[in-house]
Formats: sequence, structure tokens, C-alpha cells
Amino acid sequence: MKSILLVSCPDQKGIVHAVTSAVLLAEGNVINLEQHVDRQDQAFFMRVEWEGPEVDFKKIFTPTAEKFKMQWEYFLEKEKPRMALFVSKLDHCLVDILHRVEAGSLGVQVPLVISNFKELEGKVKHYGVPFFHCETEGEIQKLLAEHSINFIGLARYMKVLSPEFVKVWPHQIINVHHSFLPAFIGARPYHEAHEKGVKLIGATSHYVNELLDDGPIIQQAVRPAGHRFSVEDLIEIGKDIEREVFYRALKKHTEHKIIVHKNRTVIFH
Amino acid sequence: MKSILLVSCPDQKGIVHAVTSAVLLAEGNVINLEQHVDRQDQAFFMRVEWEGPEVDFKKIFTPTAEKFKMQWEYFLEKEKPRMALFVSKLDHCLVDILHRVEAGSLGVQVPLVISNFKELEGKVKHYGVPFFHCETEGEIQKLLAEHSINFIGLARYMKVLSPEFVKVWPHQIINVHHSFLPAFIGARPYHEAHEKGVKLIGATSHYVNELLDDGPIIQQAVRPAGHRFSVEDLIEIGKDIEREVFYRALKKHTEHKIIVHKNRTVIFH
Amino acid sequence: MKSILLVSCPDQKGIVHAVTSAVLLAEGNVINLEQHVDRQDQAFFMRVEWEGPEVDFKKIFTPTAEKFKMQWEYFLEKEKPRMALFVSKLDHCLVDILHRVEAGSLGVQVPLVISNFKELEGKVKHYGVPFFHCETEGEIQKLLAEHSINFIGLARYMKVLSPEFVKVWPHQIINVHHSFLPAFIGARPYHEAHEKGVKLIGATSHYVNELLDDGPIIQQAVRPAGHRFSVEDLIEIGKDIEREVFYRALKKHTEHKIIVHKNRTVIFH
Amino acid sequence: MKSILLVSCPDQKGIVHAVTSAVLLAEGNVINLEQHVDRQDQAFFMRVEWEGPEVDFKKIFTPTAEKFKMQWEYFLEKEKPRMALFVSKLDHCLVDILHRVEAGSLGVQVPLVISNFKELEGKVKHYGVPFFHCETEGEIQKLLAEHSINFIGLARYMKVLSPEFVKVWPHQIINVHHSFLPAFIGARPYHEAHEKGVKLIGATSHYVNELLDDGPIIQQAVRPAGHRFSVEDLIEIGKDIEREVFYRALKKHTEHKIIVHKNRTVIFH
Repeated sequence: MKSILLVSCPDQKGIVHAVTSAVLLAEGNVINLEQHVDRQDQAFFMRVEWEGPEVDFKKIFTPTAEKFKMQWEYFLEKEKPRMALFVSKLDHCLVDILHRVEAGSLGVQVPLVISNFKELEGKVKHYGVPFFHCETEGEIQKLLAEHSINFIGLARYMKVLSPEFVKVWPHQIINVHHSFLPAFIGARPYHEAHEKGVKLIGATSHYVNELLDDGPIIQQAVRPAGHRFSVEDLIEIGKDIEREVFYRALKKHTEHKIIVHKNRTVIFH
Repeated sequence: MKSILLVSCPDQKGIVHAVTSAVLLAEGNVINLEQHVDRQDQAFFMRVEWEGPEVDFKKIFTPTAEKFKMQWEYFLEKEKPRMALFVSKLDHCLVDILHRVEAGSLGVQVPLVISNFKELEGKVKHYGVPFFHCETEGEIQKLLAEHSINFIGLARYMKVLSPEFVKVWPHQIINVHHSFLPAFIGARPYHEAHEKGVKLIGATSHYVNELLDDGPIIQQAVRPAGHRFSVEDLIEIGKDIEREVFYRALKKHTEHKIIVHKNRTVIFH
Repeated sequence: MKSILLVSCPDQKGIVHAVTSAVLLAEGNVINLEQHVDRQDQAFFMRVEWEGPEVDFKKIFTPTAEKFKMQWEYFLEKEKPRMALFVSKLDHCLVDILHRVEAGSLGVQVPLVISNFKELEGKVKHYGVPFFHCETEGEIQKLLAEHSINFIGLARYMKVLSPEFVKVWPHQIINVHHSFLPAFIGARPYHEAHEKGVKLIGATSHYVNELLDDGPIIQQAVRPAGHRFSVEDLIEIGKDIEREVFYRALKKHTEHKIIVHKNRTVIFH
Repeated sequence: MKSILLVSCPDQKGIVHAVTSAVLLAEGNVINLEQHVDRQDQAFFMRVEWEGPEVDFKKIFTPTAEKFKMQWEYFLEKEKPRMALFVSKLDHCLVDILHRVEAGSLGVQVPLVISNFKELEGKVKHYGVPFFHCETEGEIQKLLAEHSINFIGLARYMKVLSPEFVKVWPHQIINVHHSFLPAFIGARPYHEAHEKGVKLIGATSHYVNELLDDGPIIQQAVRPAGHRFSVEDLIEIGKDIEREVFYRALKKHTEHKIIVHKNRTVIFH
């Protein structure tokens, strides 16, 4: 059985030793460990992965966690997180993820897709995934609860979620924004990029917080642009970049490789 | 003898044919031609390179240019442009360019280096290039005139040039800004990038206009950043990106591969 | 009506002028032209795109083509080439292309998919494309003829085509090989890459000729690998690289931007 | 005082815990730890960095190392390794490294440069580094011993070192090869790349072993090539790639971030 532990806390001597004591107590064999200290903040971050027998690790670990004032999360690799995909009319991110999930390349379950439009129903059902057309956030929250959803992927969902909604899902909503943030915040980044004459265009995946396009950045990528590219060309190329950063963010999230600290992300390898 | 012609004008039928007629009249053999029409602006752009005997091409071409209301520039490849490098205390862009010029990798002459500090005098003289420490723009303009300078490369010159100065050198001053513009305009881009937690950092080379970090972009590049990178790390990595985009911009400029149109650049391959 | 002309011939003076004369005669307005001379081979290459009325351009152009001993191809943009996709069991390249064709991002028709297995029938039919399970090259050739196929895309088709088959489709079969050619020719490139400990893995799209993995290279791309990557990880990441170089090759081919010369490709921008 | 420990050994339970026990005994505060198990080989790899008082860590650690049958290396960060640079006539890698060392960007000392030619003497001395023109490996070994050299960087040293020489410096000689290995082994990679028509060219830094261009790969990078690039163009662009992979390899080596295992490298972040 493989376990994953994410830890952050104020730095002091002996933390790695204490954590690995607990793992040893649980008869675990560490197979992957990454740790570092942010010197500026004196903050300690660690991800550890081990194999061992089925035990009540949370109970074993709690005294250590309390002693070092840790924020921590514990996962079993076999329990694949349950993701709801939200989508509007553009399907490139949606189809890419559904295809990867079907192929077994992304360790996640997708119990449902939610949309503010009906257009993509057929495409979603082709992948054997239930599709719900929802008008209100109330309906959505109900569906998410019924399907025991752990986190949300916004696959080019073109409707801003209310701050009330966002508060219920802290660092559990992943969006893809179609620009290299913080450049070109807002609704028409490719038009602005074209107007400005940039030589690279980008996309950004990030956790959603209460401010528009402001949450902790998870992944970013760029591709070459140039004077010959019309806005339509940028939109077309942009789809590939969006697809890439969205997938990479979902992968990091589902592999429990992200800690959020002060509106920034710590991303483990 | 190799000639290069840059042309932009309102689009209409027959322009390529008319230009190549003039080249043929000059007994030239076209070895490189790149042309396209910006459909949105109905603007025609072209660069053509040919080999042929020494003739008065400007005279041959003027009627064609007038007929089509062209903006045009004509160059002989053997006449290497004369560049003044401006520098302050950071030497990474400076040394890279001086080294490439010495190696014959950049088709440009560097008759002088101008600085608002004295620190880099020894380094510049090692490459056999005269160094001038200047306090005022008046002194600088005088030196540029005396040395028949064609254009200016700002190799991390940390002093803003006055609008009066800039007006004298339209699209002839190339700057390197240490961010992926239009993100992080201003003096402390790496600090802001660190604060924001971006996953890529960049640099931008551009022509200088009267507004800060606003002129037509020539080249951009990025490299991966991440949560482990301190501001100092970003500054260090940034040097390599700055060096790269500065070199690539100077190369495009000296090979006469740039046309500026509406605060954007057309870059030929 | 938009036309595209591809030309290669021995270099001499006046070719661009002669070609644009013919375009002007056809009342065409050139909107994109790219030309260069390979100095080593004294070979002339050119691609020109223009808009104009419906005329018999081939007739207009033939005298010019003969005079300069040209190899040339003429296309109307509105006549989208007809591609047959060949596939075995791996579906990542197939689904990516079918999705792009459906979205209108790739100017190509896909009248049929041919496979040496039955597994992907459902997936292909979901996109409304006829699927044929074929055992012999005879059957395949018959189907290609019946569907007026112009070229073939091998979307990870894991069966070597006979030299007799290949000869019928010169520079009209595009394959994707799962390595950075010429490294790791053959069937198990990811295993070899892992064994060698390379730090980047790649994929290559190329035209098929009679020798294994030897035809003219069209596109190549790489991604970072490293010591932590198992063979399975490399295979997984490799899928994304294969998908990318296959798509980019099909796009260049369908936009008539490739000339093959001496087992190498000239790729226009 | 900052310490760095590199460990590899057969995997078993409790190794991280045992190592961090020793660090704690030395009153160290771990600030960076990266560990993983190669499942195929059941091999354990770890790098740990800590701050603590000056103690005899080797003595403290020896029992643990023996118990787990470790191969290990211990370094103090303040003791910068002493590198000899070997060079022939091409200076791009040499100048880049000397410039970075002078700027303090590379934690290494360069007590001498050795060359089989005299051409670069002036350039080396400009950086205040002693230059030796050597004819025989005997002379070289003597100089390396006199200058207490720890490792060797071959900055485009165009002379093959004898197997006897190489044996004396196992995993302590870093070469840069001007191709994307294992493609284009040997002396004329850019000519072969041009002939083959590849669309990316690369460079590789690696440790030298007794076989030509075969040692463990450290870093690789590529840049776009294309049909317009002559062999001379490839050589020119190649310089930038060589410079990049050479620098990155030296950086990893001097930061003690490399373990060699079975002719492959484990590279820590």
C-alpha cells in the first residue's frame, strides 16, 4: 500500500527525522522524499511517499504533527481523487482530459461533467461520463455533494464563480487562463497579445481564489507567436497551450504534489 | 555583391512583380525573398536579398517605390552597421556581444562603448573597443555623431533616456528588459515575479520609444522558475535570458530583418 | 479564390519575376511568398500564395515551368486534401487528429480510417468516420483508390508497409517515429533511451521511404526526461511528443508547405 | 556551516531515518533533502543539505554508512572544488565559464587552464588565470597534482584523452559533445546533422569514460534547425547549445548534485 504525506510548518531542527520516525513506526519504506526550507519565510515543506502495511497512520502521526505545528495532508495512492469537470462550449481541454482518464494516464475519477450549456453533452456521454446542465450554483453544489467530489477542474468554463462558491472549495478549483499571467488578465487575452505584438503567447493554470485570475499559479507554458499570426491563429495555438497547462496542473494535483503557501504554490517533482 | 531591400506599403496587385523587375534590371539574382500581406491592415511587407553587380539601385528603384507609396530601406551586406553599446555596471550582455563580435558571429561594428559608470572600462578595452564615461546626453550625442553610429544597443543601461534623445533615434535603440513584457514593467521585475510565484520568468528585447518599456517587441524568451528560486536565483537565471534576447535582437536588426509597423515588429526569418 | 504554388528548380536569374508574371497574368494578388536558394546545391525553392479569379492557372504557368525546368505543384486552398489515417491499437495520435479535424483546425478531409486491428472501430465511428479492418495491402490499395485518397497518415500504425506499397505513395505517407531520429531507430526506442540515460526524449515525423525510419524528416520535438523516469513514464510522455510532431507534420503537408529535395524537406513558414 | 551528503546504497527500510539521525547528532538542521528509490534496481539515492556547527561528520556517519553498505560523499559548501579547464582553439565554452566564475555565479575555483595550443593564452590571462601549454599527459597529470585539482572540464578540448588518463579521474572529467547523443557520435556531428536534414540540433555534456562519447550523460539541450541552415550556421548555433549544456553540467557537479549509477547519472534538482 502506497501512502503520501504533505507537510508544511515553521522550520526547526529534527522535522525530517521525526516524520520518518513515524513512517518507520508504521513499518513504511520511504521511496520518494522531497524537502526544502524557504529561508526567507523560515518555512518547512515536505512530501514523502512510502510503501507499507495498512495501518492507522493518521493516529500514529498526530502527536508529531502537533509537536511541530504542522499543516498536513495524508493520502492513500489507491484512493483516486474524484474530480468534477466544468465546461462551457469549447471542448479541447475537456476531450483531452477525458481521453487521458480513459487511457489510465491520469490517476483521477471523473464522476460527472457540469456545464452551463448543453452543447457538449454527446461528447461527454461518449466517454461514459454523466453530464449535467446546471443553471445555478445551488444545483451545482448539490451535485458535487451527491457525487462526493474532491476537487473541480474548470476546462474553459466561461462563467465566473461567486466568492461564496469559491470559499467552499479552497485550493480545490483549478482553472486554466488563456494568457501568461499576470499579463493579460481578463476576457480577451489573445486580442491584447496580438495588439501588443508579443513574440510568445502563454497559458496559466492556477487555483481559483476570490479575485479574478489571481489565485496561486500551478503551471505555465508558452509557444512562439509572431507578426503573421492573426488573433484567430493565436486562439488556435492557445488551445494547445491551455490543454497542456491544464493537464499538467491536474496531474500535479492528483499526485498530491502541491502545497499552497501565501498565494504561491510549492510544486514537488 | 549582396543587397537587401526592406519594403512596406499599402497592398495591391503586382508589387512583388514590380520589385523583382527592378532587381532584374539591376542584374540581380534573388537568393532570399519573404513577403506577406497583413489582411487586417491591408499592408504589404517584404524583404528581398539578391546578388548582383555594383549599380545605383536606389536610382533604379525610386520610380517603383513612388508608384506604390512604399516605405523602404536598401542595404549592402558588406557595409556592416555601426553600433554603440551603452552599459552601466552589469556586464553579462556586454561581454557576450563583444565576444560574438570578436568571433565574427555578429555582422556589426562596435566603434565605442558608452557608460554612466567607470567600472567596465578595463573589460571593454580588453576587447580593443574605446570606452567613454559620459555624464550628459549632449556628450553622448556628440560621440555618436563623431563615430558615425547607426544604432544603439542598451546592454543593461540602467538610466532612462530622455524623450528628446529617443526621438533622434527612432527604431534605432534596442533595449533588453528583464521581464516577459507586458508583465512586470518597471525596475524590479524579478522581485515582482517572485512575489507573484510565476513558473516561468522571461526577458524582452524591444525598440525604445518615448514610453517606459513600451516600444515594439523584437524578441522574447522564458525559462522555468519555481518555488525554490529566491529573487537572487531569478536574477542569476534572468541574466542568461537577457543575454539571449539581446543577442537575437541585435542579430535580426543587423541582418536587416525587422520592419516596424504600428508599434509592432515584422520579423523576417 | 486562393491558390498555392510550390516550385523547385535549378537556380538562375529572373525566376521570381517570371513566376509573379504568371500570377499577375492570372490577375492574382500575392499574399504570401517565401523563396530561397540553397547555395550549396544551386537549387531554387519557392512557395507563393495568392488570391484571384478562377482561371486555368496550370495552362498559364506551363510555359514558365518548362523554361526553368521546374518541378511544381499547384493547389486550390478550397480543395482540402483527402487523408487516410492508418492505426493499430494506440489511439492518442488518432483521437487528437480526429478531434482537430472535427473542430476545423486542420484543413483536411478524412474519408476513412484503416486498421490492422478492430479495437478502435468504436472510437473512429464516434467521429463519424468510416472504419475498415484490413488484412492485406491489396485491400488497402483498393480502399484508397475508391475513396480518392491523396495521402496517408500513419497514426502509430505498427506494421511495416512493403516497399511496393511505399513506391505508389512517394512523399505521401507521413509516419511518426517515437524517437529523436537518427537516434534509436527501430521498435523499442524508449527502452533504449532509458538504458542510455538520455536527458531529453523525442519524436520525429517523416515521409516514409523504402528504408526503415529513414525518410525525409518533417518535424521533431523533445521533452525533458531524467533518472526518475521509468520506461513506462517515457512511453507516456512520449505520447504527447508523438501527437505534437504528427499534428505539425500533417498541418504543414495539408497547407502545402513542404518540398522534398534529396531526402530532406524544405519547410515553409 | 553548510554540509552536503550524497548517498547511494541497496534499498531497505529506515535509511532516511538513519541518515537524519546522524545529521541530528551533528546538530544539523536539514534545509534540502531529495531522495528516491529506483524500483527496477532496488537502489536508494539521496542528497541532503544541512546547516550546523563544525563537527567531524565523517566520523559520526561512518557506522551508519557501513551498516547500510553505502557509497557516500560528504562536502562542505565553503570548500569550493578546484577545476582545471582544458581547451584547444575554440573559446566560446572557455570564456563563458571564466566569465561566470569571475562574476561569482559558479561555485568553483579555476587554478589553471591547460591547452594543446597556445592561441588562447591571452584570453585566459585576461581573467587572471594561469595558462599552461602542454604536450603530454605526463605533464598534465603533474600540473593537476601540483594544483590540487578535483575535477576537469573539457571546454571543447579537441584531443582524445588516453584510457590510462581517464581511469585516474573516474566521473571527474566533464566533456561537452556537439550533438544530441547517442546520435552523431564522432568528430563531425554538424555535418552529419545537415546531411540527415534534422529539424533540431543538440549538444550533450557527459562524464568521460574509456569509450568515445559514451560516458554518463549529464545534460542535453536542443535548438531548432531547418533547411535554410548551412553547416556553418549549425556550427554557430551549436556553440550556444554547447555553452549551455557545459555550464549546466559544471553547475550540477560543483553543487554536488550528481550520483553516477550504472553508466547513467542521477541528477538532483
